[in-house]
Amino acid sequence: MTETIGFVGLGRMGEPMARNLLQAGYALNVYNRTAAKASALVEQGARLASQPGDAVASDGIVISIVANDEALERVTLGQGGIAEKLGENGVHLSMSTVSPETSRKLAAHHEQKGAMYVAAPVFGRPDAAAAKKLWTTLSGPDKAKDRVRTVVEALGQGVFDFGEDPGAANVVKLAGNFLIVSALEAMAEAFTLAEKNGIDRDSVASMMGQTIFSCPIYQNYGKAIASQTYEPAGFKLALGLKDVSLVLQAATASGTPMPLASLVRDRLVASIANGRQDMDWTALALSVSQDAGIK
Amino acid sequence: MTETIGFVGLGRMGEPMARNLLQAGYALNVYNRTAAKASALVEQGARLASQPGDAVASDGIVISIVANDEALERVTLGQGGIAEKLGENGVHLSMSTVSPETSRKLAAHHEQKGAMYVAAPVFGRPDAAAAKKLWTTLSGPDKAKDRVRTVVEALGQGVFDFGEDPGAANVVKLAGNFLIVSALEAMAEAFTLAEKNGIDRDSVASMMGQTIFSCPIYQNYGKAIASQTYEPAGFKLALGLKDVSLVLQAATASGTPMPLASLVRDRLVASIANGRQDMDWTALALSVSQDAGIK
Amino acid sequence: MTETIGFVGLGRMGEPMARNLLQAGYALNVYNRTAAKASALVEQGARLASQPGDAVASDGIVISIVANDEALERVTLGQGGIAEKLGENGVHLSMSTVSPETSRKLAAHHEQKGAMYVAAPVFGRPDAAAAKKLWTTLSGPDKAKDRVRTVVEALGQGVFDFGEDPGAANVVKLAGNFLIVSALEAMAEAFTLAEKNGIDRDSVASMMGQTIFSCPIYQNYGKAIASQTYEPAGFKLALGLKDVSLVLQAATASGTPMPLASLVRDRLVASIANGRQDMDWTALALSVSQDAGIK
Amino acid sequence: MTETIGFVGLGRMGEPMARNLLQAGYALNVYNRTAAKASALVEQGARLASQPGDAVASDGIVISIVANDEALERVTLGQGGIAEKLGENGVHLSMSTVSPETSRKLAAHHEQKGAMYVAAPVFGRPDAAAAKKLWTTLSGPDKAKDRVRTVVEALGQGVFDFGEDPGAANVVKLAGNFLIVSALEAMAEAFTLAEKNGIDRDSVASMMGQTIFSCPIYQNYGKAIASQTYEPAGFKLALGLKDVSLVLQAATASGTPMPLASLVRDRLVASIANGRQDMDWTALALSVSQDAGIK
Repeated sequence: MTETIGFVGLGRMGEPMARNLLQAGYALNVYNRTAAKASALVEQGARLASQPGDAVASDGIVISIVANDEALERVTLGQGGIAEKLGENGVHLSMSTVSPETSRKLAAHHEQKGAMYVAAPVFGRPDAAAAKKLWTTLSGPDKAKDRVRTVVEALGQGVFDFGEDPGAANVVKLAGNFLIVSALEAMAEAFTLAEKNGIDRDSVASMMGQTIFSCPIYQNYGKAIASQTYEPAGFKLALGLKDVSLVLQAATASGTPMPLASLVRDRLVASIANGRQDMDWTALALSVSQDAGIK
Repeated sequence: MTETIGFVGLGRMGEPMARNLLQAGYALNVYNRTAAKASALVEQGARLASQPGDAVASDGIVISIVANDEALERVTLGQGGIAEKLGENGVHLSMSTVSPETSRKLAAHHEQKGAMYVAAPVFGRPDAAAAKKLWTTLSGPDKAKDRVRTVVEALGQGVFDFGEDPGAANVVKLAGNFLIVSALEAMAEAFTLAEKNGIDRDSVASMMGQTIFSCPIYQNYGKAIASQTYEPAGFKLALGLKDVSLVLQAATASGTPMPLASLVRDRLVASIANGRQDMDWTALALSVSQDAGIK
Repeated sequence: MTETIGFVGLGRMGEPMARNLLQAGYALNVYNRTAAKASALVEQGARLASQPGDAVASDGIVISIVANDEALERVTLGQGGIAEKLGENGVHLSMSTVSPETSRKLAAHHEQKGAMYVAAPVFGRPDAAAAKKLWTTLSGPDKAKDRVRTVVEALGQGVFDFGEDPGAANVVKLAGNFLIVSALEAMAEAFTLAEKNGIDRDSVASMMGQTIFSCPIYQNYGKAIASQTYEPAGFKLALGLKDVSLVLQAATASGTPMPLASLVRDRLVASIANGRQDMDWTALALSVSQDAGIK
Repeated sequence: MTETIGFVGLGRMGEPMARNLLQAGYALNVYNRTAAKASALVEQGARLASQPGDAVASDGIVISIVANDEALERVTLGQGGIAEKLGENGVHLSMSTVSPETSRKLAAHHEQKGAMYVAAPVFGRPDAAAAKKLWTTLSGPDKAKDRVRTVVEALGQGVFDFGEDPGAANVVKLAGNFLIVSALEAMAEAFTLAEKNGIDRDSVASMMGQTIFSCPIYQNYGKAIASQTYEPAGFKLALGLKDVSLVLQAATASGTPMPLASLVRDRLVASIANGRQDMDWTALALSVSQDAGIK
């Protein structure tokens, strides 16, 4: 018999992920604030839910992947939300990039009713989601993780378990995004140093990507930063600031000074103050160029 | 007929590089301040020179790879130095990590006498030098680069040409070391954030190295930083400070603000002030831990 | 006839301020979460209110000075709070150090009911409060500011008006605290540089305080930092972090990169991670010394 | 009998200082690279020397105040320099802002010949020099300081002794300039935060200068930064970068991490990269505004 899964949030990441689940043979109850975005999935067999809670199959699994902490709290604890319907032994598989605090809070809330919360934020952009190339981090009760593992594996190319603290996977996701944005800042400074010394940015990026930094972050982002190509945005700069703010919030809460996170935060604030919020977050490099007097 | 090459500087990098040249069939005149270090090479057929200038074969190629700008100036312009003997059309292949200013100055000096200077700093540690796995950056007059190309190719796995400015290759080398040390700082902060949230450092490092940062810098250094293993030193922290200081010197000279370079500079100064100058430069992570209250 | 004023919050600042109002001839309705702290004031004639709202005299003025944004929201909007009782034309004189956003939100809330909100955070420590030496910043509707001016003047030595935006005075207060903590960081670094060069910290602090920095912040805090005397705390380091976090929150909201605020934020996080949350905020200098290898 | 003093360096600071010595009754031998600048002093009775060494009176006192370390080394150790003529017991009173290392080096050089070196850098701008309002820091052998004290006192309003290490007074001078430039950065960020929140910069500066920061640095520089008035330059931004670079050089040499000095260094580099090298160093605030998106 086909297992039915709830799926809340059909944005640029959620939509291709939901489609992959349909193709893997799951039945889906889908919810999105803007229902129109669900039509393609409905044509492929998904059932449209009118509220987040309606997407929850009885005692089943419900996935959520939404924009931020506030949206996650709303679809979970708001009226008609997931928490109202998630019965005993139900599992909320929460794949948004949110703070560990929010995960811990929602996990405690679900636990009071006998339901479970698993944090499972993913690495990868929409094209990786479509191609089942996501990397997933996982944390929460072992029993719940066992139950969702097959579903999670259907969405990406690898799953990494970080234990039972529901906030742990969120910390790892934030740490990863911090590593990425730090690499962006580093490349922006390095390529600007080259440019100001009369050296072609592209050839430096190309060399680094072929040699000591032969991994996608440096190769792909390096090409964009070297050629100053920031549109269309794969990941908007304003979202980057949201994530770095979550990093610093988690850092402060845990007593971890992160001066490099602070540096990139200020860089992103400057970028937005200069009107670049809708560019890709690699566009922080424009502020590096501007500080160096390059028009 | 066998071509004779001069080789000045038989340190941890120079010695295995010189051996590779011998094995590739070149005749070598070697010089080292501490002559004893040359004995193994002499046994293998190298001729020992008593001064840097004595290593120069007439109108030939002389390689230098020494500790810093001062040492390079001394072996080049000092009494009995390379410049005294490098005849017309001679090529000084300068492989040390030095400032672009020093390269430009020495290039101008050689040019006055009809000789040429090629900057060719390398990426890679002593084990990579021994295994001919170095990556080499190259800049200087095209005519001179053509002349040394075969020699350079005998030393590593790839050569990247950055034009005719003799300082360009040094800028790229400094930019690369800056990218590396920035990644070290980023990993140290990220892993400390994880640790302070109760997450195992090694599992975060392992995940990143297997997924979005699947390149040697993150994999190898990541393992060291996660497990806090800083000895024996592959590249001493005090040398790291030397290089970052050169980065900032080149940045100031070219009007390039590099706040991330400043951040790691202060981190390295703090590390040395706390007695860690002889550890590997990954040990900057100890200062990150200390700031987070971890003993 | 004696005017009656409500006074909510009898902490280290509020208690001496309330006493000054009694001595200036005002009748007071006082509220404090821990009622015991009100006993001395009650002996001097104040009436004890059982809830924040009970302290509000009909159509009158109510002062609040509490620990943080959450406390201010609770005493204002919580059950039995100020907003329940503040009638038309009533004025809430809000003297806490809080975010401009909280002030704007509470002002809008009061306005709906015909009441008014004036932000009036103060500069000065408890001893300055007792000696009527506070400096007060003021913002809100002109009509409301006119009404409270005499009261405000009874509490300090000077009042500065920053217009009608209820958040403006909070921004100025935060800017001022930011200037102070920046001076602390600067002195800590300068005195440590001196010490590491064999120069007596006190003599440097003394010279600066007598010459180009002849103002209380540098003189008083300079003496503490030079002599490393951080207890008892005049203003706890943990409160300093709260204020700098408010600075950065206001900075982000308004699109203002403040790298120096970020720097001191990380310094304070490090200080707390190393167990110094209950010391005076000048103790951030201990982290500067620690980074310099001074035990 | 009138004592004769040598005076080397008649720039914006040196010229009014030399005039004050003439007026105090000293005979002067003056030297300046551009001799024309000496004409007014010569009219007032000074004798023009053709080389720095010619300004030295036998066994006497010679003052130098020149642009930087290189200039000081040239007038001291260069051909026809001070060192050639400074006899046994002669005192070189060195008032330039230079590195402690240069002072220590020159002191050692003089000592070999029985002469003495006293470092005596001053705080104050040209108008303060003219008005004898300078503050002087002093370090060197006690015997030499005793000998020059009357001369030093004739130049300013106060003298502070920092012991016998010839580099100590330079460290204190650099620490003072660092405190000043840190205050500039802090004010620039604070006033920009105010501006972005709709608050008048001038009124914030005015309030701070009247209350908790009632000292000249905040009052005078605060007014300039609030009103964005950066020309004419009292102290050029490019000189500010020179001084902050000396601060960081002394910091590195002594093992003192100074992240705030690094921050202002990058700010000054950005300012120069954007063409502001000839403005007053308060113009670093323009870069703060630019980062905040203010045109």
